[in-house]
Amino acid sequence: MDIPEELREDEVLIKVKYASICGTDLHIYQWNEWAQNRIKTPQIGGHEFSGEVIKVGKNVKLVEVGDFVSAETHIPCTRCKMCRTGNMHICLNMEILGVDRDGIFAEYARVPEVVLWKNDPSLPQHMASVQEPLGNAVYTVTSGDVSGKSVLITGAGPIGVMAVQVAKALGAGPIIVSEVKDFRLDLAKKNGADYLVNPAVEDAYSKIMDITQHEGVDAVLEMSGNESAFNLGMKSVIPGGHISILGLFDKNVSLDINAGVFKNITMYGITGRKMFETWYKLSSLLNTKKIDLDKIITDVIPFENWQEGFDKMEEGKCGKVVLEI
Amino acid sequence: MDIPEELREDEVLIKVKYASICGTDLHIYQWNEWAQNRIKTPQIGGHEFSGEVIKVGKNVKLVEVGDFVSAETHIPCTRCKMCRTGNMHICLNMEILGVDRDGIFAEYARVPEVVLWKNDPSLPQHMASVQEPLGNAVYTVTSGDVSGKSVLITGAGPIGVMAVQVAKALGAGPIIVSEVKDFRLDLAKKNGADYLVNPAVEDAYSKIMDITQHEGVDAVLEMSGNESAFNLGMKSVIPGGHISILGLFDKNVSLDINAGVFKNITMYGITGRKMFETWYKLSSLLNTKKIDLDKIITDVIPFENWQEGFDKMEEGKCGKVVLEI
Amino acid sequence: MDIPEELREDEVLIKVKYASICGTDLHIYQWNEWAQNRIKTPQIGGHEFSGEVIKVGKNVKLVEVGDFVSAETHIPCTRCKMCRTGNMHICLNMEILGVDRDGIFAEYARVPEVVLWKNDPSLPQHMASVQEPLGNAVYTVTSGDVSGKSVLITGAGPIGVMAVQVAKALGAGPIIVSEVKDFRLDLAKKNGADYLVNPAVEDAYSKIMDITQHEGVDAVLEMSGNESAFNLGMKSVIPGGHISILGLFDKNVSLDINAGVFKNITMYGITGRKMFETWYKLSSLLNTKKIDLDKIITDVIPFENWQEGFDKMEEGKCGKVVLEI
Amino acid sequence: MDIPEELREDEVLIKVKYASICGTDLHIYQWNEWAQNRIKTPQIGGHEFSGEVIKVGKNVKLVEVGDFVSAETHIPCTRCKMCRTGNMHICLNMEILGVDRDGIFAEYARVPEVVLWKNDPSLPQHMASVQEPLGNAVYTVTSGDVSGKSVLITGAGPIGVMAVQVAKALGAGPIIVSEVKDFRLDLAKKNGADYLVNPAVEDAYSKIMDITQHEGVDAVLEMSGNESAFNLGMKSVIPGGHISILGLFDKNVSLDINAGVFKNITMYGITGRKMFETWYKLSSLLNTKKIDLDKIITDVIPFENWQEGFDKMEEGKCGKVVLEI
Repeated sequence: MDIPEELREDEVLIKVKYASICGTDLHIYQWNEWAQNRIKTPQIGGHEFSGEVIKVGKNVKLVEVGDFVSAETHIPCTRCKMCRTGNMHICLNMEILGVDRDGIFAEYARVPEVVLWKNDPSLPQHMASVQEPLGNAVYTVTSGDVSGKSVLITGAGPIGVMAVQVAKALGAGPIIVSEVKDFRLDLAKKNGADYLVNPAVEDAYSKIMDITQHEGVDAVLEMSGNESAFNLGMKSVIPGGHISILGLFDKNVSLDINAGVFKNITMYGITGRKMFETWYKLSSLLNTKKIDLDKIITDVIPFENWQEGFDKMEEGKCGKVVLEI
Repeated sequence: MDIPEELREDEVLIKVKYASICGTDLHIYQWNEWAQNRIKTPQIGGHEFSGEVIKVGKNVKLVEVGDFVSAETHIPCTRCKMCRTGNMHICLNMEILGVDRDGIFAEYARVPEVVLWKNDPSLPQHMASVQEPLGNAVYTVTSGDVSGKSVLITGAGPIGVMAVQVAKALGAGPIIVSEVKDFRLDLAKKNGADYLVNPAVEDAYSKIMDITQHEGVDAVLEMSGNESAFNLGMKSVIPGGHISILGLFDKNVSLDINAGVFKNITMYGITGRKMFETWYKLSSLLNTKKIDLDKIITDVIPFENWQEGFDKMEEGKCGKVVLEI
Repeated sequence: MDIPEELREDEVLIKVKYASICGTDLHIYQWNEWAQNRIKTPQIGGHEFSGEVIKVGKNVKLVEVGDFVSAETHIPCTRCKMCRTGNMHICLNMEILGVDRDGIFAEYARVPEVVLWKNDPSLPQHMASVQEPLGNAVYTVTSGDVSGKSVLITGAGPIGVMAVQVAKALGAGPIIVSEVKDFRLDLAKKNGADYLVNPAVEDAYSKIMDITQHEGVDAVLEMSGNESAFNLGMKSVIPGGHISILGLFDKNVSLDINAGVFKNITMYGITGRKMFETWYKLSSLLNTKKIDLDKIITDVIPFENWQEGFDKMEEGKCGKVVLEI
Repeated sequence: MDIPEELREDEVLIKVKYASICGTDLHIYQWNEWAQNRIKTPQIGGHEFSGEVIKVGKNVKLVEVGDFVSAETHIPCTRCKMCRTGNMHICLNMEILGVDRDGIFAEYARVPEVVLWKNDPSLPQHMASVQEPLGNAVYTVTSGDVSGKSVLITGAGPIGVMAVQVAKALGAGPIIVSEVKDFRLDLAKKNGADYLVNPAVEDAYSKIMDITQHEGVDAVLEMSGNESAFNLGMKSVIPGGHISILGLFDKNVSLDINAGVFKNITMYGITGRKMFETWYKLSSLLNTKKIDLDKIITDVIPFENWQEGFDKMEEGKCGKVVLEI
């Protein structure tokens, strides 16, 4: 493939080195209803990556040719009320990399300066690709205080498992993971979960209450997108505790709101990553080796075998899958 | 009636002057399912009051005979994890005045020192009785920042109407009230609501978006206990905004949680009043005349005509009803 | 004067309507040591203004020709750690309008898009010029909770006086102002101060303690740049209270830090305005008429008589001085 | 010694097992000016301990005979504004154990229920004694966010060294310790400090800036009570960062406040421990083995040799000294 010529003055051209697969990419691959409505073909998918800057637009100052970079997926307009108040991650005119414009499943990718993140040269490049979902975990974990607190993580997909490591690195404990798939429970364990709960085969609520000496958990990180899991969290959370919700749901969720009211809890809706607070924080955690992404990256696959990666994800028998380009 | 003799060492005896009627009292009067399950008869109801201390237990130091007092309804154990971390209002062993023990619809009432609030002598005594529900409004309004912010209050019962005044006193604007009953809409208007919305007769969401120049509201105060109202709030709130929930619901609520997640909103469950931060705050607002409770107290009735007060409340054609004892 | 031709692609050209005088402008006028070291002549001063957009650079999207605008004084680089974490107001590569580049004491001014603020057309144009210092007051007042709290404002220069109005609009009370100049004490009174204290002629600490029933004040807003005033605040603040410091000092300040430690207080250093949270907030307060700048603007003077304005400021016998251009 | 008979109804009698020595105890031992003014002899000193409950007053419910306990040093009145708003640690009528009333350097000690802390039976008893100063470290570290942040700790006395461990357990990094005594620098290193700086022999500011890639540190924990150290922190802290001050100073401190203002930093005065949030947090950190107090306790000495312990502390050649009773 030739190097693309066209480059806007606020963009950089990147030679992609590693690209990891997100659940969103899987939805596009599966061409589900959401994808059919949202994606305008033809379009290149993918948004989690690391790579080298090989060309910069004339207004770009943040990076130089040769820099090793990754990027935020949420491309903000920089001018709306959200962008102007430190909330670019919920820009009112958001464009999503690999969804609303060409992404990074390619040899070369064009990315606007405003979303670029310059990696520490010492960070392994396949790990650098996975910073974006790690950012989801970091933003969720840090939305409330978890230090010295008990935490229930409902859902042990890749981000749930990262959240185990992040919560632990921030002083949380005990960390309880609720999940129905054995592979994921096992991965959560390997990543440091103190207790595993499988609501499909045991009374999850009773077990959680036993673990927490019948107090309930201080914090719930809802990462399953499952109604029962959400209500398990609502029931298990201690008065004054909090629930941070990253999971997305197929439909409306039927919730016992009174429980949350009487217990005076706080619920945080979490989307994306704070730009770029979350990146600075995750970067520090990675660089000081408080997080080990190799415990979460189960597969590094040559790009030409990408289909194998998507298949693994469909089966759910993997942590994070990274493609080497 | 004779002055009761028995008084525990940590209690005071109060000659009740004014007692206002809460929705909870109405439920007990109506003897609904909740009341039948919760209340052990015979028991004196009522928990909103003002009165004079006429006797103090030997360990009491906070007040003296002759002091003009009101009290918090939530009687905390002072020893549980919540009580010991500044969260007495969500005590794990809570006793409710007028629900779990005799209340204040009586000439004399015994109240533990731990919940007493010493009123400023200059505060009109009928107003002092209404501080407890005002505290609900103050705690709800102050759970998130409303200064210079647009606010939607869903539900204009007495506490919703108080919230209009409180939000205004704290610099909020515009203040939009959503309610279906005309009497209440009218009362909200008289208490300073900038805009009224009646979802029964108009497209509430469109109207709210028009008022807020299609941004949505910065804060929602949910005080209706109504599922549609909650979802109206969820739909209308701006990205990064918050919803404070004081309303209680008859059953599970079906919510579009994804909206809250994508918009990165915060939801606060609100119960009672922070003890005693909320009381200090409401007291200051009353004493500096930033709140005028006479705009909310629609009826002051002699105690012997108490049934009239309960009837008015059943009809919903009143703000706050106060009994003079 | 001709309309300047040169305009960078990210700039707009503004026909200035009103320009108000800041203490910084006075320092430059007086050509004090700071100014001699900082300013590279020749340069146009001034940074508080309102005006009309008459030309826009090709990359500008926030405003259009004909828009009525003001601007933030702090021109951020948009790429440093502060700018990328929602803290543009403390950009590591800050450029100051009217200090590091030409300002707005002129018929026409070039201003970068990133600092522009679009005014509500209904806002009187002379008031719009004063939003920038009002923003200092709003940021200082909102750095901690003041609702239902007692507040001591040390120093009643124009921003101190604005802070009186802002604190009042946000539910603070009582508001005590400490100041040594009679003109300013009087202006503070007219702007709503509940109590005045003159440390030059009375025992300020005793008076403050009397006013607060010997509790001390909940919040101190230090706006004097005076060491005694700072220590008065430190002494007067209640345990658990806060001191927000906007004042700048001629030299090191000798402080009784132990007092702050034992009282567990929080001190906030305040600079500029949060971009643009503070602007959204002040704008709402102005548009809902919770703040009346005409009580603070004591002089509106034709631009040709500008020297008169600077003279007034030197004397200190004025609130805010606005030049009409 | 006989078991004391007299016991108030809200007190418990404790058989002391371990007692550790605080700097305050040393001041009393040295009978310095502060001690001469504050202490009314004869009085038993000491406030850091663990022991067994052997008798309980009739109103005591929190513990039972046989429980293994420690206690908070700050005895609150429970009725003042601070106590009633979740701030018992800054009670307006505070009594200090071992300072204002008999302490725990004795076989038996009387302690009011309100300050008792029930230890986990699995916690080693000599460690339990040291929870109180650990609480100072935990409260200081948690006063601002340190997760994924660089931290400068000025002063490596026992609490400074504990703060190294606590900050690390909460995800901070790198952690820089500034201290002039070699023994303490060495102890800080053994407890996990990433970098050591000795202002007596090197340019501390330059070194800190080099370590932080010329950004400055995100957080400063001032634990030295030394003016130069405080100003080093003020100079080294990043814009938007914070300084938490636990150190107490001999006299007024001369500070470059403007630096703090321009950098928009926050300064927290820290005293004692939040009651009992800090205790719950430190307890969790201890019980999940995120903190190892044996790295800080350098000496466990039989009570009869107590003078040896005080001597070590005077020399500064120790971490924490614990007496076995």
